[in-house]
Amino acid sequence: MKTILLSIEYDGTFFAGWQRQPAQRSVQSELEKTLSGFCHKPVAVFGASRTDAGVHAYDQKAHFLWDFDFPVEHIPNALNGFLPSDIRIRAAEEVPTDFHARFSCTGKKYIYKIRNTAESDVFSRYYYSRIAKTLDVEAMAEAAAYFEGTHDFKVFSGNNGVIMHNTIRTVHSFSVNKLDNQIIELEVTGSAFLYKMVRLMTGALIHIGHGKRMPESIKSVLAGELKRMGNTAVPQGLYLAKVYYDQKELLNDLKSSSLENSI
Amino acid sequence: MKTILLSIEYDGTFFAGWQRQPAQRSVQSELEKTLSGFCHKPVAVFGASRTDAGVHAYDQKAHFLWDFDFPVEHIPNALNGFLPSDIRIRAAEEVPTDFHARFSCTGKKYIYKIRNTAESDVFSRYYYSRIAKTLDVEAMAEAAAYFEGTHDFKVFSGNNGVIMHNTIRTVHSFSVNKLDNQIIELEVTGSAFLYKMVRLMTGALIHIGHGKRMPESIKSVLAGELKRMGNTAVPQGLYLAKVYYDQKELLNDLKSSSLENSI
Repeated sequence: MKTILLSIEYDGTFFAGWQRQPAQRSVQSELEKTLSGFCHKPVAVFGASRTDAGVHAYDQKAHFLWDFDFPVEHIPNALNGFLPSDIRIRAAEEVPTDFHARFSCTGKKYIYKIRNTAESDVFSRYYYSRIAKTLDVEAMAEAAAYFEGTHDFKVFSGNNGVIMHNTIRTVHSFSVNKLDNQIIELEVTGSAFLYKMVRLMTGALIHIGHGKRMPESIKSVLAGELKRMGNTAVPQGLYLAKVYYDQKELLNDLKSSSLENSI
Repeated sequence: MKTILLSIEYDGTFFAGWQRQPAQRSVQSELEKTLSGFCHKPVAVFGASRTDAGVHAYDQKAHFLWDFDFPVEHIPNALNGFLPSDIRIRAAEEVPTDFHARFSCTGKKYIYKIRNTAESDVFSRYYYSRIAKTLDVEAMAEAAAYFEGTHDFKVFSGNNGVIMHNTIRTVHSFSVNKLDNQIIELEVTGSAFLYKMVRLMTGALIHIGHGKRMPESIKSVLAGELKRMGNTAVPQGLYLAKVYYDQKELLNDLKSSSLENSI
């Protein structure tokens, strides 16, 4: 029996999210259906991140157990032939038997894409969050830096019915950049994230970007001196960009991105 | 009674095309439904181009008759509030009463987008035609130039049940450009196009791009000396980019694009 780790890209638009749910279309259930058909027996797939409905992934990771005599490098093509067009397997590799896509994970990177314009655009409606009122990107970037470090992120977590006993998380880096064409990209890398944490942090940054609070107010919220501001940012703009299992790779990525920012 | 001309953007993915059809979702019927609801009586909408299922539009034009006492400049916002998210009205203007979106049209521009890579990408599946085998863009550009001018395009027209008595058309310009990131863009401007003409010409250029024919073979096909080559290119990559009613604007656009090409 081998443990196989998949790298998965998906368009979250027409899924109820990653997680298997009765009578709903989910990424996990589509993968399990395809793998089970392939193996002629039920196969369970374990994902690194339970992305919400509408949230996309450039690189979700998931593992499953495999006792087929089939070359691992051919798994992506074999599965892609049966999967719906909004899920693509990018890579497959054998990992140690004690590996778990979620519990072995040492970090994740999310990207949040905003189109800051009053003009709607049919082609980006599922792939960007459109915000009509002009955002102060510098204020957002300044505020985002206050999220970096180890904090209790309890107020930046949604209620999904699970009581979290430990809400302390570490955000390694949180950058906000204005790209061409009214596009603003937020990029956050952390050890782990609470339920809805990225969208709640993004919502607070949008609030600050609209000048309703000062950037330093993030510090006060994290210290418990101020209530959380802003709304949960819409799922359309959110992408799970990378899942890390190797601390060296994570450090390298952080180093190169901070080098980039300092250029 | 005023005649109003709309500029319309749509994502063609989930439409059976522009044209109203029984029990199918079409752009025309969505517009007519919304306008009729607005006017409390049936309103007919006349489009410039009958785009096929899956074909997109940056700038489709359509006219309708309007006897409401409502400021024309507010029509886009009023309609956008009721239209589905895959149709956006970009502009509305009053035009002379003898104006017809289709018959007053003096030219059209289409863009065809190709991702020339073996790697599929969930986010572009509806918006690009993906072609795995490497295309020779220079050969395609050379071949595209043979389409320019006035020719009988009969062999480059699909059968939609209508017998065309006049299949002579003028292609003003046809360019093929390689952009970043494995993207190839075809841009064709003409006086008018036959049914499926753009996708059939594109299919022939793809055939030539794969080295199966020489660029000059287009000349022989148009002269009736050689059969048409290639398949109908898929609709996903096709965009109606502009509809012209003003010969000066058309000439200006052609001039600036040929200047661009010569730089």
